Amino acid sequence: MISVAALIFPNVQTLDLFGPLELLGWLPSEFEITTVSENPGLVRCRSGQSIAVDRALSERSDYDIVLVPGGPGTPVENQSEAINDWLITSSLSARTVMSVCTGSALLASIGLLDGRRATTNKMDFEWATSFGKKVDWVGRARWVEDGKFFTSSGISAGMDMCLAVIAHHLDRETALWVAKNAEYTWHEDASWDPFAVDHGTL
Amino acid sequence: MISVAALIFPNVQTLDLFGPLELLGWLPSEFEITTVSENPGLVRCRSGQSIAVDRALSERSDYDIVLVPGGPGTPVENQSEAINDWLITSSLSARTVMSVCTGSALLASIGLLDGRRATTNKMDFEWATSFGKKVDWVGRARWVEDGKFFTSSGISAGMDMCLAVIAHHLDRETALWVAKNAEYTWHEDASWDPFAVDHGTL
Repeated sequence: MISVAALIFPNVQTLDLFGPLELLGWLPSEFEITTVSENPGLVRCRSGQSIAVDRALSERSDYDIVLVPGGPGTPVENQSEAINDWLITSSLSARTVMSVCTGSALLASIGLLDGRRATTNKMDFEWATSFGKKVDWVGRARWVEDGKFFTSSGISAGMDMCLAVIAHHLDRETALWVAKNAEYTWHEDASWDPFAVDHGTL
Repeated sequence: MISVAALIFPNVQTLDLFGPLELLGWLPSEFEITTVSENPGLVRCRSGQSIAVDRALSERSDYDIVLVPGGPGTPVENQSEAINDWLITSSLSARTVMSVCTGSALLASIGLLDGRRATTNKMDFEWATSFGKKVDWVGRARWVEDGKFFTSSGISAGMDMCLAVIAHHLDRETALWVAKNAEYTWHEDASWDPFAVDHGTL
């Protein structure tokens, strides 16, 4: 089993989280998903629903995959020492760290993307990239893979990246099977990014 | 405010629910979302996360929009009288009833789609359509609109339909604005359906 920790925090962007979890959820004998947060209890996502925290961060940091969603609640301006410490520790042991949307701003803000290529939400590109002066930010990419780090563009892009992560850990046929079952048209080309044009980040 | 009731039940398909809620969630001064279920408490979705129920079905049935997701937990073989009664009552007063995936099998099973055109998940098309002998099932459609009923194809198709529902209640520009912010490429043509070919429902 490949263990997946999905970080959640108040005002996490709904689809940043549940897009990838929908896709990983098609492979319950391959991926074991745990929602993790600073404290146990319930966390309210951007669209208003409350989600149960499976484990507090302090309980465990060794997961195979770490999923870092974004959204207005991304703790990047109001940083959390507990989240930062956990991200640094869990990134060391993880085989893959994947961020969606402004989740990469959080990774960048604690130096985890220094010297790496990465992308982020296109609407908030200027704001998000300001947290990583030593990051090689890519203005046009659905997602970027650099070493163990996969960073995606905004919100829906997390699904395209997640299918690439499934292909990376298992194989492309499995990723295509998941996409087909979810009736999702995978944008398999990581450089496909019409929103770079819309939001002027080219 | 346009009130939206999102029906949840154990093993609801994750993206059937959270795809539409992500999109509606961009318009918090237009749409007020409430998760509703047979009982209060927590409900576990298909990919394993537990979601809090905002209101029990018995508390209220007059919502402007009713969202009926599908998934393996769709209470269509093991019917729930409480859910059926609520769906019949709430459909009468709702301005729009939208189902995603096998959610339409549930609507069909209690006669709500009789004499109407509708679609459903393409992978489970034969199974889902067996619950509605008097429904004019459409084998190739991303979604179908007939009167107040919007029924979508599988899982991801709920997002395309939900944008059409946003356009219907507000306007097309708002739907396009939401899609752009979510970095989602809206399949705006309701007849677009590559999965009809993949799953042989043409």
